[in-house]
Amino acid sequence: MQDTLNIFKIGGGIIDDADQLSQFLAELARVPGRKILVHGGGKGANQMLTELGIAPQMVNGRRITDAATLDIVTMFYAGKTNKQIVAGLQAAGVNALGLSGADGNVIQATKRPVKDIDYGFVGDLTERSVNAQLLDQLLRAGLTPVLCAITHDGRGQLLNTNADTIASTVARALAALYRVELHFCFEKDGVLTDINDDNSVVPQITPERYADMKAAGQIAAGMLPKLDNAFAALEAGVEKVVIENALKINEPVKTILCRS
Amino acid sequence: MQDTLNIFKIGGGIIDDADQLSQFLAELARVPGRKILVHGGGKGANQMLTELGIAPQMVNGRRITDAATLDIVTMFYAGKTNKQIVAGLQAAGVNALGLSGADGNVIQATKRPVKDIDYGFVGDLTERSVNAQLLDQLLRAGLTPVLCAITHDGRGQLLNTNADTIASTVARALAALYRVELHFCFEKDGVLTDINDDNSVVPQITPERYADMKAAGQIAAGMLPKLDNAFAALEAGVEKVVIENALKINEPVKTILCRS
Repeated sequence: MQDTLNIFKIGGGIIDDADQLSQFLAELARVPGRKILVHGGGKGANQMLTELGIAPQMVNGRRITDAATLDIVTMFYAGKTNKQIVAGLQAAGVNALGLSGADGNVIQATKRPVKDIDYGFVGDLTERSVNAQLLDQLLRAGLTPVLCAITHDGRGQLLNTNADTIASTVARALAALYRVELHFCFEKDGVLTDINDDNSVVPQITPERYADMKAAGQIAAGMLPKLDNAFAALEAGVEKVVIENALKINEPVKTILCRS
Repeated sequence: MQDTLNIFKIGGGIIDDADQLSQFLAELARVPGRKILVHGGGKGANQMLTELGIAPQMVNGRRITDAATLDIVTMFYAGKTNKQIVAGLQAAGVNALGLSGADGNVIQATKRPVKDIDYGFVGDLTERSVNAQLLDQLLRAGLTPVLCAITHDGRGQLLNTNADTIASTVARALAALYRVELHFCFEKDGVLTDINDDNSVVPQITPERYADMKAAGQIAAGMLPKLDNAFAALEAGVEKVVIENALKINEPVKTILCRS
């Protein structure tokens, strides 16, 4: 039987709160076996862009990553945030090792092609973007890879890449070697049927139930891409996708997405 | 016979010049066999501190690393500079992997004790600071570790650490496993007997010759700690220390320090 590999993804909310982040890292240290952490960025990069007078370039509500913005997000994601998380995990007894996609060529992306909008230095991933062999080597050496949302194109260009996409692409790539459980951690206890009721967590969602919930308008708009992404990962061989509270990963309350 | 391991250290001058940096990385890619790169920081961190209105804290001409300064140098050294170097090496065909000391606990430092001066978040190294086993594993996996000048204390605190010290401490730690050649690269062709004459490179310096040159006042003040450091590394088992021009590492002009 294959070993279990738990892949956790955390976002900006928890990264911006030092106390919550250290609580999450302590919980992560309690998760047995092999694991990978993928983190997004927090508000720090935006604050620094403002302080430095670099105006956000937005098109249709989406940020454009120009060269100055790429520099700042690289500094925050791959520098400050990644190293603080790694040092925090080391203190908690986890032998963490931080990586951008350029490190060991672990995630090679393609700069998003310009169609209607030029998103700038943003990387898209494909099935073949992930160096699963290196991640497996690191895991077998007892290390916990900590991936930030910066990748490269293999020709010297760093690229800003969506952390949810990194987490699910890494999960799919490692599904051939491990029984992968992919955990999207956020500030709610799971998928809620009523966004105003924190106790309305759905314990389990199958593809059929998901279709019903979408038809009934029960899925919040912001949750849709995350869940579409999650079910695609399940179809591609990931064993289980879990939506849960970053501070309660070792508690039973959560939403488990499963193939049937 | 032991394999040869070349350890290169580059400083701020070359990091601040994008063209020179890419020239150096192309030369580094031509060096055969196993290698490690250690890099300092450039002027970028200081510029950003100024832009953000964080006044440099200096005591007796030495910078104090307060919390705000540590954040910025971590962002620059471990984020921007480290990832640009790694992406550049990947483009040149070198499978580079960037590391701070916290990553894989590769360099654990001790916060400098407060005596007359509190240097703040500055890390000192000892013989046992380096995780030689992990560096060896990465080298055997065909990777080229790229170390920045940020370490940690193992209890969650990142620390700013001198890059020359990191290079020589890593060289000493790996001397048990490899025939180590330690290269200090800078903007001159080697140790000069006449600082105003770039052609006065001394090809070879033994400890005896070094003592003579010091007595005769032939060593520039800025070069003294570097050379003291270098001879200490030789005594501790490093095979060869080379002082050379970062843009001429594959040319014969250089100063070789040797035990006898």
